[in-house]
Amino acid sequence: MSSDRSTNVKSAVAVVGAGPAGLTLANLTLQSGIPCVVLERSSRREVETRPRAGVLEHRSVELLERHGLADRLLAQADRHGTCEFRVNGQAFQVDYADLYGGRTHYVYPQQEVVTDLIAAFIEGGGDIRFSVDDVTLHDLTSESPRVAWTSADGVRDEISCDFVAGCDGFHSVSRRSIPSGYLQELVHHHGIGWLSILAEAPPSTKAIIYSLHPDGFAGHMLRSSTVSRYYLQVDPSESVDNWPDDRVWMELQKRLSLADGSWRLTTGKITEKRILDMRSHVVEPMSYGRLYLLGDAAHIITPVGAKGMNLAMNDAAVLSSALTEYYKAGDETGLKTYSDDCLRRVWRAQEFSQWMVGMIHTSLDTPFQARLAQARLEHLASSKAYAASFAENYVGP
Amino acid sequence: MSSDRSTNVKSAVAVVGAGPAGLTLANLTLQSGIPCVVLERSSRREVETRPRAGVLEHRSVELLERHGLADRLLAQADRHGTCEFRVNGQAFQVDYADLYGGRTHYVYPQQEVVTDLIAAFIEGGGDIRFSVDDVTLHDLTSESPRVAWTSADGVRDEISCDFVAGCDGFHSVSRRSIPSGYLQELVHHHGIGWLSILAEAPPSTKAIIYSLHPDGFAGHMLRSSTVSRYYLQVDPSESVDNWPDDRVWMELQKRLSLADGSWRLTTGKITEKRILDMRSHVVEPMSYGRLYLLGDAAHIITPVGAKGMNLAMNDAAVLSSALTEYYKAGDETGLKTYSDDCLRRVWRAQEFSQWMVGMIHTSLDTPFQARLAQARLEHLASSKAYAASFAENYVGP
Repeated sequence: MSSDRSTNVKSAVAVVGAGPAGLTLANLTLQSGIPCVVLERSSRREVETRPRAGVLEHRSVELLERHGLADRLLAQADRHGTCEFRVNGQAFQVDYADLYGGRTHYVYPQQEVVTDLIAAFIEGGGDIRFSVDDVTLHDLTSESPRVAWTSADGVRDEISCDFVAGCDGFHSVSRRSIPSGYLQELVHHHGIGWLSILAEAPPSTKAIIYSLHPDGFAGHMLRSSTVSRYYLQVDPSESVDNWPDDRVWMELQKRLSLADGSWRLTTGKITEKRILDMRSHVVEPMSYGRLYLLGDAAHIITPVGAKGMNLAMNDAAVLSSALTEYYKAGDETGLKTYSDDCLRRVWRAQEFSQWMVGMIHTSLDTPFQARLAQARLEHLASSKAYAASFAENYVGP
Repeated sequence: MSSDRSTNVKSAVAVVGAGPAGLTLANLTLQSGIPCVVLERSSRREVETRPRAGVLEHRSVELLERHGLADRLLAQADRHGTCEFRVNGQAFQVDYADLYGGRTHYVYPQQEVVTDLIAAFIEGGGDIRFSVDDVTLHDLTSESPRVAWTSADGVRDEISCDFVAGCDGFHSVSRRSIPSGYLQELVHHHGIGWLSILAEAPPSTKAIIYSLHPDGFAGHMLRSSTVSRYYLQVDPSESVDNWPDDRVWMELQKRLSLADGSWRLTTGKITEKRILDMRSHVVEPMSYGRLYLLGDAAHIITPVGAKGMNLAMNDAAVLSSALTEYYKAGDETGLKTYSDDCLRRVWRAQEFSQWMVGMIHTSLDTPFQARLAQARLEHLASSKAYAASFAENYVGP
């Protein structure tokens, strides 16, 4: 960015962070004729190639589609309406789309979502600054908050705006700009880790697999015809160094195996190994003065149930509606109820995710809970009412 | 009992304990022509007046009805198909009978069930000994186990039998006769206490009420037109001495209150106050040699969801079928699968009860879990699929 462009920018909304929350908000806001500037710490290339989530609920896709943001997604994403559970080497499938009016998941990697949203925003005339550093937020309780940053070419820059949207993830600078003690932080550690593996391997299955094995959960997720994601339940303090590739594949093969010996896992080059700590974190309220928090900046959810990116997009939809009401009619109602509106869905998702965490994990330390997990799976396999309720929650009500 | 009747009794089945499990088993077994003797530590009057559970699932009633044991129950029990939840002073009802094919609960106090089953057993020619003491079990892994006891008139007595049914509750002498280390004990403490109150007060409501109040759960249960049961969430280490009657009524009025101020609790003479520790306890397997454990002797469940007496009756039904197969056809299959057959339903009930415990309780110590409880209730109020699944579990699948 050239420095002549950068002094005393004015905009209606400053969006901090170019992930799914920030970019969805930026596109929706721009389409409503509200000027906004997006600030992102990473380079464009980095955000467009960083693999993260990969499952969109039908509601998220409908949102993008309504705003003309889903063309490539609809052309390329795989639609999934069935998932498979395995317990003690026995498999059963839940046809959740059938159980819930044909609604499906869309499997489309997060970096593709981000790529599409950046392209659409720029094409629409949006102002987005990559590789910015040292972002600071000021005067958040005034009517003219300011956001300052150091641009890619080292120039200190600043924007004056009406609203700030903090979409900068769990380690959010935005959230940390709120005076200590203002937010209530609600935290839960599940005491479970996942070794998350991404590999250049074609899927070994047509449907996502959740397997409850006595040694721990194993998951086979789908990303594309050439890339797959897998999860192995491990101790949250475990190091990836203890998991050489051979051990990963052996453990996946074992925990996903079927009693009839028919299961074969297709292997490939492992391109990412990370330990995820299963934790939940919600702040209340999701706003402070004229700063609104969206997505991971306000709430972390476990990957179980694949709700994270969808909650982020919902926050963006709620805030963009509220901003549109405000600019079109001076109506502040939506801004005032933003936090409550978002939190209702956040807590419902947290409740579902915790229920599902309790169903697919096992622990030798707590055999009582291990029995409950098995009972929950057997119930899911045998009760249509239970499966229908699962379906509604899983694919998104 | 006279001592001439008491020496070297022989019978097919010795049933230790005259609660719902033992008496259901004794009646069903006797009806199949299999002789059995029931031994009970308390007097007949004591067991026929001891208030405990009060809710029968439709399956339990069907079981009793099939064996001609439900005449008085069907004439006198109230049928319930609706329950009410309150959260933050707002009430909503779940018509679980409507949601589950018209199946209802039957509200009929446990002591009435016991009274009916004792009468039927004696009328059918059954041998039941009350007020026995010092029961001991011997040779359980042989083909001729023995049970010894001291009768009400102080005579040491003994029975030789083919099978022993341990139906003597949580503090079971039967279970404690099994060598240490044989059973796996699966235990969970919820860290929640209930102050359980029985009062000579007409019900203040037509449907059972579960209320989630910031100060803790309150429940209004139904027993009869003149007697009601109430629960207040307290610390499990709480003493009843801290709960004088006035405080009980004030706390119930407050925690059950509605935002519109319309709620009025009818009070009456409190006849029982106890602290219940919300805990779960299951032993596996539910048998040892020729000893079979039934009901509370094998599994304790929290009162949440009212499953206890129903699980006891199910155990009795499973064992009586197995014994009938054995005596009619020499088939031991049912005896061998008794434990697994019962445990499947036990764990499903435990899973449901734990889910419901998590929905109706609150805790200032764990605000995250308190939010999940509220989300669960709001979900129950708003989702028909979720309510339908609740209904199936609640009234019994």
